Amino acid sequence: MALSTRHLLGIKDLTAEDISLILQTAQQFKEVLQRPIKKVPSLRDITIVNLFFENSTRTRISFELAEKRLSADTINFTASGSSVSKGETLLDTVNNILSMKVDMVVMRHSASGAPHFLAKHIPAAIINAGDGINEHPTQALLDALSIMEQFGTLKGVRVAIIGDIMHSRVAQSNIYLLKKMGAEVIVCGPPTLIPKYMEEAFNVRVEYNLQKALEWCDVANVLRIQLERQNQVLFSSLREYNLVYGINRRLLESLPKKITIMHPGPINRGVELDSDVADSDQSIILQQVENGVAVRMAVLYLLSNRQ
Amino acid sequence: MALSTRHLLGIKDLTAEDISLILQTAQQFKEVLQRPIKKVPSLRDITIVNLFFENSTRTRISFELAEKRLSADTINFTASGSSVSKGETLLDTVNNILSMKVDMVVMRHSASGAPHFLAKHIPAAIINAGDGINEHPTQALLDALSIMEQFGTLKGVRVAIIGDIMHSRVAQSNIYLLKKMGAEVIVCGPPTLIPKYMEEAFNVRVEYNLQKALEWCDVANVLRIQLERQNQVLFSSLREYNLVYGINRRLLESLPKKITIMHPGPINRGVELDSDVADSDQSIILQQVENGVAVRMAVLYLLSNRQ
Amino acid sequence: MALSTRHLLGIKDLTAEDISLILQTAQQFKEVLQRPIKKVPSLRDITIVNLFFENSTRTRISFELAEKRLSADTINFTASGSSVSKGETLLDTVNNILSMKVDMVVMRHSASGAPHFLAKHIPAAIINAGDGINEHPTQALLDALSIMEQFGTLKGVRVAIIGDIMHSRVAQSNIYLLKKMGAEVIVCGPPTLIPKYMEEAFNVRVEYNLQKALEWCDVANVLRIQLERQNQVLFSSLREYNLVYGINRRLLESLPKKITIMHPGPINRGVELDSDVADSDQSIILQQVENGVAVRMAVLYLLSNRQ
Repeated sequence: MALSTRHLLGIKDLTAEDISLILQTAQQFKEVLQRPIKKVPSLRDITIVNLFFENSTRTRISFELAEKRLSADTINFTASGSSVSKGETLLDTVNNILSMKVDMVVMRHSASGAPHFLAKHIPAAIINAGDGINEHPTQALLDALSIMEQFGTLKGVRVAIIGDIMHSRVAQSNIYLLKKMGAEVIVCGPPTLIPKYMEEAFNVRVEYNLQKALEWCDVANVLRIQLERQNQVLFSSLREYNLVYGINRRLLESLPKKITIMHPGPINRGVELDSDVADSDQSIILQQVENGVAVRMAVLYLLSNRQ
Repeated sequence: MALSTRHLLGIKDLTAEDISLILQTAQQFKEVLQRPIKKVPSLRDITIVNLFFENSTRTRISFELAEKRLSADTINFTASGSSVSKGETLLDTVNNILSMKVDMVVMRHSASGAPHFLAKHIPAAIINAGDGINEHPTQALLDALSIMEQFGTLKGVRVAIIGDIMHSRVAQSNIYLLKKMGAEVIVCGPPTLIPKYMEEAFNVRVEYNLQKALEWCDVANVLRIQLERQNQVLFSSLREYNLVYGINRRLLESLPKKITIMHPGPINRGVELDSDVADSDQSIILQQVENGVAVRMAVLYLLSNRQ
Repeated sequence: MALSTRHLLGIKDLTAEDISLILQTAQQFKEVLQRPIKKVPSLRDITIVNLFFENSTRTRISFELAEKRLSADTINFTASGSSVSKGETLLDTVNNILSMKVDMVVMRHSASGAPHFLAKHIPAAIINAGDGINEHPTQALLDALSIMEQFGTLKGVRVAIIGDIMHSRVAQSNIYLLKKMGAEVIVCGPPTLIPKYMEEAFNVRVEYNLQKALEWCDVANVLRIQLERQNQVLFSSLREYNLVYGINRRLLESLPKKITIMHPGPINRGVELDSDVADSDQSIILQQVENGVAVRMAVLYLLSNRQ
């Protein structure tokens, strides 16, 4: 079995079969990660460059762990301290790195479409680790694996994605994936962060009332509020956001059933999630992190042509 | 043989037997480091994360070398460019990294007690690489190994620790270790950096006169003056500090016997030590650095449950 | 066969036989880099520290790739976040790292002569990855390999080095190498960047007229304009530099023969080179980058005493 694509640029380009293949492969790698010896020789002799033009602790470390557990050689590149600050174009930077014969590129960039641009110009396999406000496909895949572990399937599971939907690549990749796999999706957040046109653009139901969204769903995937948005009059204060859209224990206990809480991290405790929710037994936030390594191993393995 | 503890948080928690076991194991690894092939497969398949929330060249590199010579996989994390600057809590950062199934965490943090806090919450073995003004246990262990190499024992060796005792985690770990192992210890420095109450708190003799301290001791462990303390009226200037507490060749030659000079580095040449002292044959400063790798290999090995 | 030197500090110290040996070895490694498995076990168990006191994307990554393909263990050290900012002397920093028993040091420093100074004081093999305005020997070696691939030889090939000759370590290393190997060299650029005395100092012909230089040469090695020089009244603006010394397609097409274009990167597109020249089939800029890894593998291998 192989993926229908040579790169992982976004969930938008994947078929339902591709997604199933990645999730099944991830489940196999997850068994490897339970063993005392967590390393497999699959990508021995493959060199992977992690090109992070935006800061990211967890995503970079998650990919690096996935690469090392597949026995790949890794090179880390971060924008600070690079030729990028000398004014080199993105294509020059990447062409230079590729002329050194690397096999795969994991890339995060603040410009939407940056990895798609590169994929047209360079021979190595490219994995999008987040591009602007476009997609973050491995996040959606690890979220999907986490939901499947709870419900045995994605089909028919009701997922509410809550927060700043308009600017979130996590939301967008999740919506594409969940709809392809037959889950039901609504998005919930303040009208300034979910304009009315998004209902049509995304083909999802919009619900501005948090209580109603939570009453409907099986899973609440709560997005991180970007603190820098505060200055942009999209909401007036973190405190107000927390009062209207923050999830606390009292709210969860008022619901007719126990729902599952997800968050892509890092959490703003006391803003979008209260600590006693983040750390409760309804939260699968740390399982998501664990699944991230397995999903990234699966993606790297399937795109490496080593299987 | 095994350590009585699952973590290395501080010397305070170790028994004399623990310390002896670490030092003996370090001596064995030191023999490995003399060979052309300096690598052993002991920690193959173990993943270690180096979490440095404070800058450190030598400690980070020393741990990384120790890890690589034990064949462990290493992931480096430094606070700059991390989610920490996005306001994530320490526990969230570390929990996330641990959900990725790492086996050991080497951690430096500016808050005293940070590694102890984590040890209560996470399953991996934690090694304190320096926490605030509390402890720096691997430094004390490498200092002890260096003294043993000079004197064959720690018992009865007279050690003067000189400088800013009040703020020094190196001093504190050294005092704990030396007293547990039967060495004699005095501390020496300006009264602003060794308040009178410290005599009781540490159960060591305080000597404000440098000449007298040096006449008494076999070993002078000279601490680094933190240049940033200058603004805190604890001493008036670096020049004055040097005049009263700096160690120069003339002073050494006035002593009744040849004493051994140690320094944890990096040295402020011309402040706490003159260059002709730091580079003299009485100085074992570079042996300390060499011993650092062996001691860290020993600690990692003994805490790994692989022996 | 072995090199006549224990370090690679500069091309100045190499014999023509040394240069030939490095280039032949690099050609062999280049064949390895064409294979699906690009790794050889030659430097297994050797530890190399990359000491970069100046920022550099491509040189650091190129060395790191070379090291990993030789199966060496690598430790990266960059000046930011290091004890260097605590005022430690260069020798103390390096002595400390070497006391940890590393085998080789790759070093970039803004001070001309820094690696030569260290080579006198420390036992490890030192490879200069660029020192101030002095030398950048591996760049000259990869340039030479790239020219040989085009012309089969260096002997008699006419090379014009164009740009800021006065401040360029790339120019200086290239001139030494090309003259030792029997190539013909002229330097070309504005009089403020090639003072008249340089003709004698370098024993090369100076040509201030770009058109004439290009008509004469087989290869134009176009240097990067350091944007920070703009404030130094050495030339009035980037636009003026481009008008007089920038290479564009129209200029190339006016020449009697097709010349080869080289550039050490990163390119200032639209300043010293127009994009349609940099990306044309006359440009071998990306081959240079590719050759960089092979040349660095050769240098590391030959200095390791493992052959």
